[in-house]
Amino acid sequence: MDYRKIKDQKDIDVEAAAKDDVDESYPFVPSASSSIGEPKIDINRIKPQWKRKSLVTFALTILTSSQAILIVWSKRAGKYDYSVTTANFLVETLKCAISIIALASAWRTEGVTEQNKLTASLKEVIVYPIPAALYLFKNLLQYYIFAYVDAPGYQILKNLNIITTGVLYRIILKKKLSEIQWAAFVLLTAGCTTAQLNSNSDHVLQTPVQGWVMAIVMALLSGFAGVYTEAIIKKRPSQNINVQNFWLYVFGMGFNAVAILVQDFDAVVNKGFFHGYSFITFLMIFNHALSGIAVSMVMKYADNIVKVYFTSVAMLLTAVVSVFLFGFHLSLAFFLGTIVVSVSIYLHSAGKMQR
Amino acid sequence: MDYRKIKDQKDIDVEAAAKDDVDESYPFVPSASSSIGEPKIDINRIKPQWKRKSLVTFALTILTSSQAILIVWSKRAGKYDYSVTTANFLVETLKCAISIIALASAWRTEGVTEQNKLTASLKEVIVYPIPAALYLFKNLLQYYIFAYVDAPGYQILKNLNIITTGVLYRIILKKKLSEIQWAAFVLLTAGCTTAQLNSNSDHVLQTPVQGWVMAIVMALLSGFAGVYTEAIIKKRPSQNINVQNFWLYVFGMGFNAVAILVQDFDAVVNKGFFHGYSFITFLMIFNHALSGIAVSMVMKYADNIVKVYFTSVAMLLTAVVSVFLFGFHLSLAFFLGTIVVSVSIYLHSAGKMQR
Repeated sequence: MDYRKIKDQKDIDVEAAAKDDVDESYPFVPSASSSIGEPKIDINRIKPQWKRKSLVTFALTILTSSQAILIVWSKRAGKYDYSVTTANFLVETLKCAISIIALASAWRTEGVTEQNKLTASLKEVIVYPIPAALYLFKNLLQYYIFAYVDAPGYQILKNLNIITTGVLYRIILKKKLSEIQWAAFVLLTAGCTTAQLNSNSDHVLQTPVQGWVMAIVMALLSGFAGVYTEAIIKKRPSQNINVQNFWLYVFGMGFNAVAILVQDFDAVVNKGFFHGYSFITFLMIFNHALSGIAVSMVMKYADNIVKVYFTSVAMLLTAVVSVFLFGFHLSLAFFLGTIVVSVSIYLHSAGKMQR
Repeated sequence: MDYRKIKDQKDIDVEAAAKDDVDESYPFVPSASSSIGEPKIDINRIKPQWKRKSLVTFALTILTSSQAILIVWSKRAGKYDYSVTTANFLVETLKCAISIIALASAWRTEGVTEQNKLTASLKEVIVYPIPAALYLFKNLLQYYIFAYVDAPGYQILKNLNIITTGVLYRIILKKKLSEIQWAAFVLLTAGCTTAQLNSNSDHVLQTPVQGWVMAIVMALLSGFAGVYTEAIIKKRPSQNINVQNFWLYVFGMGFNAVAILVQDFDAVVNKGFFHGYSFITFLMIFNHALSGIAVSMVMKYADNIVKVYFTSVAMLLTAVVSVFLFGFHLSLAFFLGTIVVSVSIYLHSAGKMQR
C-alpha cells in the first residue's frame, strides 16, 4: 500500500497540471500561430513574452523538482495517513482561488473586457471537463496496472508518455517536428529511462502483454489530455489565462469532490477532512497548486513539447538535489541518462533551426 | 588472473587491428580527398568501391562479433592455458602470410609495379612500427590500471576510446565533423556504455583520479594509434593495401616476438610454443587475423569513424547472438543503449548531409 500512496502523491501534480488546461468549445485548432500563441506579432510584446516564457519554465522546473523532494520528506516523517482525494480537492480549490484573485486584480486595472470576463456560453465551457475526465480514467486504470507491473516498473513505463505526447502533438495539433527533433524525442525517452535505471529495472521486461497494453493506453490518455488542453487553451490565445484556468479548476474541484465521495467518504466522516495532514502536506498542496498554474502557463505561452522537456530536466534536477538533501547516490546510469537528455535538448533546438 | 586473460584475448583484436595500419614516412596528411581515399575520382570506380566498402564493413562486423563469442566459448571449455603472446605472434604471422599471398597473386596478374612492390626506402618504412609501439605502451599501462579499476569497470572506461578517436580524428587528420555528428558521437559513447551496464557498473564511479588519468591516457594512445594508422595508410592511397599491411605485420611480428621473450620465455621453453592450444584457440587466431585485415581495409577505404561505429554495432550484435548461443539475458539497459546507438547512427548520416 505504501508505494501506491507515494505514487498517488507523485501523480497529483500531473493530474492537477492537466486539469488546469482547457479552453473554448471549438474543435481542434490547426494551429495558426507559433508556440507564442498570439496571432498578431507585436515586436514590443515579444521580449516580455520571452521573459515570461523563461520565468514560467524556470518556476515550473523548480516547483516540479521540489514536489518530488517534498514527497521524500513526508515519507521520511512517515506521514501518509491523509486521504489523497481531499488533498487533490484542496489543490484544485487553491488554484481556483488564485485564478479568481488574479482575475479580480485584472478587472480592477483593465475593467471587465471580452478577454477577462468569467461568463461563458455552454458551448465554450463544455470542453473544459474533458482533460480532467481523461485523467480520471487514466487514474482508474492505474489501480489495475499494478496487477501486472510493480511500482518501479511503472515509473519506467511512464516514460512512454514522452513518446505519446510527441505523436499526439503531431497528429492532433498538426505541428511538425523535424526528423532531428523526432530523434531528439526518442533520445529524451531513452535518456529519462536510463537515468531511472536501478538493479530491479529489468523486471519490467517480464511485464505481460496486458501490462504493456495498459501502460500504452495510459500513456495515450495522459498524452491526449495534455495535447487537448493545449488545443483548447490556444484556441483563444488572447483570452486571459486566469479565465481559462478558472473553468479548468472548477471542473477539477467537481471531479475531486466525486472522488472523495466514492473513495474516502467513510474516512472523511469518521476521522475528519484534514485527518493525517501535516505541515509537509500543506506545503505539498501549495506546491502542487503553483506548479499546476505554471503548467497551464507553459501550455498557453509554449507547448507540450516544452512541458515534456522541463519535466525531464526537473526529474534529473530532483535526483541531484536529493544527493545533498538525503544522501542519495547518483548511479552511472543516471550520468549516462543525463548526457543523453542533454544531447536531446541540444538536438531539439538544432533541429528547430534546420526545420 | 582469469579476467585478465579474457581481457587480453579481447584486446588482441584491437591491438592487432591497429598494428595493421600504418604507411608512408611523410608527416600527417591534411586529407586531400574524402574517405574513399583515391585522389582521382573515376565514376567507374565509385560503384565497386562502395561495394567493397559495404563488404568490408559487413565482414568486419561479423568477425568482430564472432571474436567475443569465441572468447566466451573457449571460456566455457575452461581453456585459457596457452600464452597470449604466442597467439598474438601467430596472428601477426598469419596476416603477414595472407598479405604476401595476395601480393604474389597481384604480381602474377599485374606484374610488379610501383604500387605493389615490397621494397621500400627507410624513410617510408620508419613510420610503420609507430602504431604497434603505441599499442605496446597502452598494453603495458593496462597492467597498472587494474590496481585502480576492476575488469568490468575497465570495460566501461574503454568507451572513452570512442571520444578520443573522434577528437584525434578531428585534430590530426583535420577532418571536420558537423555539430550533429559530434552530438552523435557523444551519444555513441553514452549508448555503448549504457548497453554494457550491469549491477556492478557503479563501482567505476569510485575510480580514483589515477585510474581516470590512466584510462584517459590509454584511450588517447589507442585513438592516436588508430588515427595515425589511417594517416599513413591514406598518405599513398593508390599503393596496394597488401604492401602497407605487410610492413605493419612484419613489425607486429617483431614486437610480439620480443613480448614472448620478455613475458613467456620460460613457459614456451618448458611447455612448448603451442602449450594449451585448442581448436578454439586456432579458430580465434584465424578470426583475429581476418578481422585485422578487415580493419586495415576500413582504414584505407573508409575511416576511423566508420571503424568506431561498426565496432559498436558488433558489440551489440554479439550480445544478441549470445542470447541464442549461451542463454544470456538482455537487460533493459542493453535495449536503451541500443536505441541510443541506433539514433546516433542515424544522426551521423543526417549530420553528414547538412555539413
